[in-house]
Amino acid sequence: MKMMVNLKRLFPLCLVLILSVFIVSACQLDTEGTSEVALTGLSPNEINNEAFQDLFPLHYASYQKNLEMSDTKFGGSVLASKFEHNREPYAPILFNGYGFAKEYNEDRGHIYAVEDNISIARINDKSIASCFTCKSSAVPSMIDQFGDEFWTKNFRNEIIPLAEEMGHSPIGCSDCHDPETMELQVTRPMFATAMLEKGEDISNPTLNEMRTYVCAQCHVEYYFEPENKAVTFPWSEGYQPEEMFEYYETIAMESGFSKDWIHNVSGAPMLKSQHPEYETWAEGTHGKAEVSCSDCHMPYTREDDRKKITSHYWTSPLKTIEQSCRTCHADQTEDELKDKVESIQDMNKDALDKAGDILLTSHYYVNKMITSGVPEDKIKQAQDLVRMGQWFWDMVSAENSTGFHNPQGSMDSLKTSVEASNEAIILATEELVKFDVNIDELKEEIEKVKKAVYDEPDNFKKNEHATNDYFPPQKN
Amino acid sequence: MKMMVNLKRLFPLCLVLILSVFIVSACQLDTEGTSEVALTGLSPNEINNEAFQDLFPLHYASYQKNLEMSDTKFGGSVLASKFEHNREPYAPILFNGYGFAKEYNEDRGHIYAVEDNISIARINDKSIASCFTCKSSAVPSMIDQFGDEFWTKNFRNEIIPLAEEMGHSPIGCSDCHDPETMELQVTRPMFATAMLEKGEDISNPTLNEMRTYVCAQCHVEYYFEPENKAVTFPWSEGYQPEEMFEYYETIAMESGFSKDWIHNVSGAPMLKSQHPEYETWAEGTHGKAEVSCSDCHMPYTREDDRKKITSHYWTSPLKTIEQSCRTCHADQTEDELKDKVESIQDMNKDALDKAGDILLTSHYYVNKMITSGVPEDKIKQAQDLVRMGQWFWDMVSAENSTGFHNPQGSMDSLKTSVEASNEAIILATEELVKFDVNIDELKEEIEKVKKAVYDEPDNFKKNEHATNDYFPPQKN
Repeated sequence: MKMMVNLKRLFPLCLVLILSVFIVSACQLDTEGTSEVALTGLSPNEINNEAFQDLFPLHYASYQKNLEMSDTKFGGSVLASKFEHNREPYAPILFNGYGFAKEYNEDRGHIYAVEDNISIARINDKSIASCFTCKSSAVPSMIDQFGDEFWTKNFRNEIIPLAEEMGHSPIGCSDCHDPETMELQVTRPMFATAMLEKGEDISNPTLNEMRTYVCAQCHVEYYFEPENKAVTFPWSEGYQPEEMFEYYETIAMESGFSKDWIHNVSGAPMLKSQHPEYETWAEGTHGKAEVSCSDCHMPYTREDDRKKITSHYWTSPLKTIEQSCRTCHADQTEDELKDKVESIQDMNKDALDKAGDILLTSHYYVNKMITSGVPEDKIKQAQDLVRMGQWFWDMVSAENSTGFHNPQGSMDSLKTSVEASNEAIILATEELVKFDVNIDELKEEIEKVKKAVYDEPDNFKKNEHATNDYFPPQKN
Repeated sequence: MKMMVNLKRLFPLCLVLILSVFIVSACQLDTEGTSEVALTGLSPNEINNEAFQDLFPLHYASYQKNLEMSDTKFGGSVLASKFEHNREPYAPILFNGYGFAKEYNEDRGHIYAVEDNISIARINDKSIASCFTCKSSAVPSMIDQFGDEFWTKNFRNEIIPLAEEMGHSPIGCSDCHDPETMELQVTRPMFATAMLEKGEDISNPTLNEMRTYVCAQCHVEYYFEPENKAVTFPWSEGYQPEEMFEYYETIAMESGFSKDWIHNVSGAPMLKSQHPEYETWAEGTHGKAEVSCSDCHMPYTREDDRKKITSHYWTSPLKTIEQSCRTCHADQTEDELKDKVESIQDMNKDALDKAGDILLTSHYYVNKMITSGVPEDKIKQAQDLVRMGQWFWDMVSAENSTGFHNPQGSMDSLKTSVEASNEAIILATEELVKFDVNIDELKEEIEKVKKAVYDEPDNFKKNEHATNDYFPPQKN
């Protein structure tokens, strides 16, 4: 049994699901009302990718392409710091006081998942197993074994040695396929829990739905719920940024989860958004048209001029426009389609940077409120606005399509971010002048920070306290 | 000759264009390299729609459907005030001091163009012929006859009587067709001028391009250039809101055009955006895919169960989803397509209203700067920001697709609006507190205005000074 449910009240329902839902015919389509599934001869508990190599050499070869590192204009699979000049050099300030200010990289291929997870500076001796949930093929068995005690196991001392002992692989075959039958399966329990809470019926998924669900079990926004640190998706109010924010302000808050960290500059109780690709896609054009993740990211290709297979090279479809896009958009050339995608992304990136700039400014205005003795209730009000501004900004920043999955919705989120950040600045301005703060001097100080961020981004890499050289800490 | 060019330096180029460009085979497609065009027997100067009735009874019948008035969720063809509660009740404040605060309606069908043009409260004894440019089939002949003296002729005393004498029709057959051959033609000279200035080659238009150009000669942003009040399209920098704004801030400014009016509340030098459907479409998905205006708004239909014709019932494609949308989007049902369009429009309308609310607030903050004795340079700076905020808001408000023609671009424009309006509020706040203005009282006053706008929108209809009851005028 591969499923564990972290919310006890859902347990009976999930038991039914476990037995009935997640095994769906993927390789064998049954057209006569009965299904016969070929067996691989592998153990149902096989978690080592290499074990599948001889049985599925072409699929395995395409999986091995995940070792390749190549960029697209805004994405790609090169290991690069988000803090680089042409990416989001202001990010170390926006995440100040949190691990993401230490090191925050663009993702490489899934094949590097374990390696990059272990080596990132965000991981320390206190890190817990929750951080490992979507990195290794050993995790489903571990959740089976430990139940809800899995999540708080020590990452370095308990989980990694055990995974190695189990002969695990980085994200691979058994994360999405039943090793015995190769049928698609969802192996991370939090997906079923979240869908149930959202009231979505996933009891009889189509193959097309499964071609999204296997990705959606990980490419989503999540938090660690406070009771046992289980990875949890905040979906019950909906997939839109404002709906998930509503969830955090009410349901998560009531359960005891109020923040991911306290911001080092503004003292605001912050939320960190995590790669909400599935949610953004679901609300966008392709999602509404039921074009699955796999349709674009795992197109049918011919390997070795032989057999047509579903590619297991997970990367930007901009690298496979012919197979990924032109299957539907055949009336347009590769160049035309690339131009269209990039013009959406250009507009998104410009807006993201502008919204990020206003957000950064808002953090320092609130900082000045704290150091100037403005009443606590006003500071709290401004901090809540900064929290909100950053949430709506980060829902676009952390999402890995640079706005493509939902161009309008992502821009709407950035617009809401700008509204909240500016509201914080307006409130701060009203209060600061009462305390005779020279606003022009404050602006000059903020400009100094920005100049440092843009001119010397390396100063901020791997050092969460670097920004303090440019500005006093929040408390006098 | 139907073309006049208002910029003298372009005259020689346009002469060539006049002779070569605008007659394109529409009804007769030539597949052998030679073209034979059937003649209607009508005079090439025929401008009365009824003259075409017997020759083209099915097309004429579909044109007559423009008499029908029916709504869609956000658009449609019912004569309704924009100031109604569920539309933009705050508009009388945003346009205060300008004709659009007197009366501003949703458009009815083209067949009502002359009637609605004559009766709207914005027209007065001083109104000029420029306002009539896109309303009557008599206009091309008038421009022929009067040249650049046409634009400043008196609307009521000179132009309307002359048009009636000429036996004109509201926008109809001869505006887009050569009456003799029925070939598509562009009859308004400002389109050619603007395309030339933009550097777009329109010397050899395809039929598909003409199926957009005939609409684009009128469904665009324009202003009256100061020398002779000729209708002029601000396109040389591009079609995006920021590119047209750049045009107004530089090229138009240098030519002597700096504003449409001075705002009654903020004293800002304002620009009024006009129905930029073509520009918004051109930058959106359908425009980039070269889906013409006619493809969606003039779909092929069967009239009287007989012949397949191009519909001349110009209205929202939401009324003809089967013919307008499902020709390409056959994989989706009518209901699915309608839901998708409306969800785009819902998000756009929410954002428009929020941006409008912030914009309205910014006008009153600047008003308070004026009445509080803030230095002129700061007031000027804030007024420029309000001008900018309203431009980017109005580019979405005045556009007749509620964001559908370019969902991402329209949201980007609203985001830019919010940024500028908020910057004005921040600047005003900084200055006002130096003059001991009580910001909380100011906010209360603005809330009173908003309450009046939303609770009693009728108070603001047809009375541009009504808002002064709720707030002092800009100058003490």
